[in-house]
Amino acid sequence: MADKMGFEAPRGMRDFYPADMVWRNKVFDAFRAAGEAAGFEQYDACVVENYDLLARKAGEEVGDQIYHFFDKSERHIALRPEMTPTLARMVAQRQKELSFPLKWTTIAQCFRYERMTKGRKREHYQWNLDIIGEDSVLAEAEVIGAACDALRRMGLSPSDFEVRVSSRKFLGELLAASGIPAEKHQQVFLALDKRGKMPDSEIAAMLKDGGLSESEVAATFSIMETKSYESSAELTELFHLASVAGFADCLRFDIGVIRGLSYYTGIVFECFDRKGEFRAIFGGGRYDNLLTTIGGEPTSAVGLGFGDVVVTELLKSRLGESAAAARKGVAVGFMFPEQRDAAVMLAAKLRAEGKRVDLALVNQKPKKFFSHADSSGAAEAVFLGPDDVEKGVARLKNLETREEKEICLR
Amino acid sequence: MADKMGFEAPRGMRDFYPADMVWRNKVFDAFRAAGEAAGFEQYDACVVENYDLLARKAGEEVGDQIYHFFDKSERHIALRPEMTPTLARMVAQRQKELSFPLKWTTIAQCFRYERMTKGRKREHYQWNLDIIGEDSVLAEAEVIGAACDALRRMGLSPSDFEVRVSSRKFLGELLAASGIPAEKHQQVFLALDKRGKMPDSEIAAMLKDGGLSESEVAATFSIMETKSYESSAELTELFHLASVAGFADCLRFDIGVIRGLSYYTGIVFECFDRKGEFRAIFGGGRYDNLLTTIGGEPTSAVGLGFGDVVVTELLKSRLGESAAAARKGVAVGFMFPEQRDAAVMLAAKLRAEGKRVDLALVNQKPKKFFSHADSSGAAEAVFLGPDDVEKGVARLKNLETREEKEICLR
Repeated sequence: MADKMGFEAPRGMRDFYPADMVWRNKVFDAFRAAGEAAGFEQYDACVVENYDLLARKAGEEVGDQIYHFFDKSERHIALRPEMTPTLARMVAQRQKELSFPLKWTTIAQCFRYERMTKGRKREHYQWNLDIIGEDSVLAEAEVIGAACDALRRMGLSPSDFEVRVSSRKFLGELLAASGIPAEKHQQVFLALDKRGKMPDSEIAAMLKDGGLSESEVAATFSIMETKSYESSAELTELFHLASVAGFADCLRFDIGVIRGLSYYTGIVFECFDRKGEFRAIFGGGRYDNLLTTIGGEPTSAVGLGFGDVVVTELLKSRLGESAAAARKGVAVGFMFPEQRDAAVMLAAKLRAEGKRVDLALVNQKPKKFFSHADSSGAAEAVFLGPDDVEKGVARLKNLETREEKEICLR
Repeated sequence: MADKMGFEAPRGMRDFYPADMVWRNKVFDAFRAAGEAAGFEQYDACVVENYDLLARKAGEEVGDQIYHFFDKSERHIALRPEMTPTLARMVAQRQKELSFPLKWTTIAQCFRYERMTKGRKREHYQWNLDIIGEDSVLAEAEVIGAACDALRRMGLSPSDFEVRVSSRKFLGELLAASGIPAEKHQQVFLALDKRGKMPDSEIAAMLKDGGLSESEVAATFSIMETKSYESSAELTELFHLASVAGFADCLRFDIGVIRGLSYYTGIVFECFDRKGEFRAIFGGGRYDNLLTTIGGEPTSAVGLGFGDVVVTELLKSRLGESAAAARKGVAVGFMFPEQRDAAVMLAAKLRAEGKRVDLALVNQKPKKFFSHADSSGAAEAVFLGPDDVEKGVARLKNLETREEKEICLR
């Protein structure tokens, strides 16, 4: 470690100083509260996972994109890039004992080894919501509704974001109706997922490489103009449920939502800010085959992944950089060493009343004390001088309104 | 991955199923609340740390005890075994900007690669409290007081645990008074730290290897019988402050508390259950040289590390395995598909009132619904049948008292 660079975090990793933690807590608190309101149970697992489990879900090429290494007994382990394989492992391990459907949630740190681009880190936290063992589209509605609730709890409204919804099953039906056989659909999904990221001509080439004729390619592009979901029973039901539950104003049908991962089987969704300034806020869908992929019993599931990075950027942009900071607690200080015990006793008393107390550790001049109390974000401050202790009464000052009230020291 | 073993967590790593998370949340919530009450600010950093930073604090032999590996650009990185080097790095990076004293706290996952013994995992979470940049012994008092507060918030009382306190400075003064020169003290501390873990004869041999004469060894053992701290100004002050703040009943002077790490310079402390059944619950002390070790400015500091494993074992033993589980929230179910929309609407209404709602995703027979609601730990349950929806009134049942009250569906 060169002395010059010795104090920086490892490349791609984040430090959270207190001002950063205020934002992280705002986001995580909303995740937890929304998961709790929707009746999800919390779970977690270690960020170190078996490499083979990850490779079984994502393919051996996963090794190029993740941190992996061997322990001293030559076990191949890795820092997980996502939580879903671990979730599948935990469910498969206790599939006989667990009472389905499961509604599970976690905030999981995940690592990816990717080229550094602006704002792209190699680790992030991802809020996961999963309902496992339930076919009803009410599962999708509950997951999407909880995610919208989290955004509302962070201070955003449906005018700030929208959830774009489609269905792989519906898209498959439309493709089949155009004569494109089911065995080619996976290739079509992969190509269509690139729309907006590459020119249509390249996507057409990908489709032809996937075995589609010229007319099938044309049919595929015309399917992407579909504006109505009414011929899909499950999408109709989802929009109906969203309307009953009160979050229909957050949803929009968009046949172009595909989701990159091949394991989705039904409804898929992605949330974006309405101004289109940021990458996806969250995404997810129904995946009915994951447990069988890793060797468990067939189980239907709906899941969502919601990272901490994009939403924090969005919140700072929409609410302002200082929106997460709120004044809180009481600063307690004292003028001479003789007032220290009274300050310690007052701090103990206020803490016993449930207050946050930042107790000065040495005596200070009042000016220095109040200046520090103010800049540290305290809501109130008490400073004890000889007279206060003698009288047994001090003044509690509200640092915003400058109002004072008397408090008893005994 | 063999199919047989494929669903287990990697060796030494923990899965947290919902029942485990209830305990973890109980412990973490107490950590956070106690840190907040005492006015500490939260910080965090990535679990992946620069290897050289860790080695600079702990020596190159740290490589035998931790997970470390190289990234694809040959950067030597590691899973941190403790938070203190990272804290020192973060403070050093902004030493000019930060306003001291800092009172910082985090709950950090830490990894150690050690032989697996019963109950010893390779990762744990450690609550850290540090006050940086303050010489006053009020810093020690605030850190120890906050840790005792956390134990109280978990449901323990001073009859369950005690914090044993000593001072390396005081012990050094006693050794010096017996003619043992300062340059030998570090060796003496290392030997004395083994007391209780190996026979006194071996400790005597270690002391002789450290350059002590026969009579100095005898003097050292007799110093370990010291029962009074009154000739130490800092210990006298600490006990006085604990008494003023109201946690003196948690403290006991014990000259035998040394702490293994060489970096402590003053007061040291360790907390144990009074029955002596478990390993140390938390430990810490004053360390004044850490920032200079990694290349920062000289800074006095007091720190505490409080792991999640031992305290959770202790809590389960003292409070019972089921003590963390509390009934909460409302289960909402419905008899026929025709009542689903009413159930969805009721769930949305109850959630808007701030309630946790576990909404059934399909219609069920009442018996099955109530049985699941009961076993899932709901506090209340509402089941909607055709009559309820027609009347617009349903019954909310308290699952503990069996009492029912009517609630309006419209």
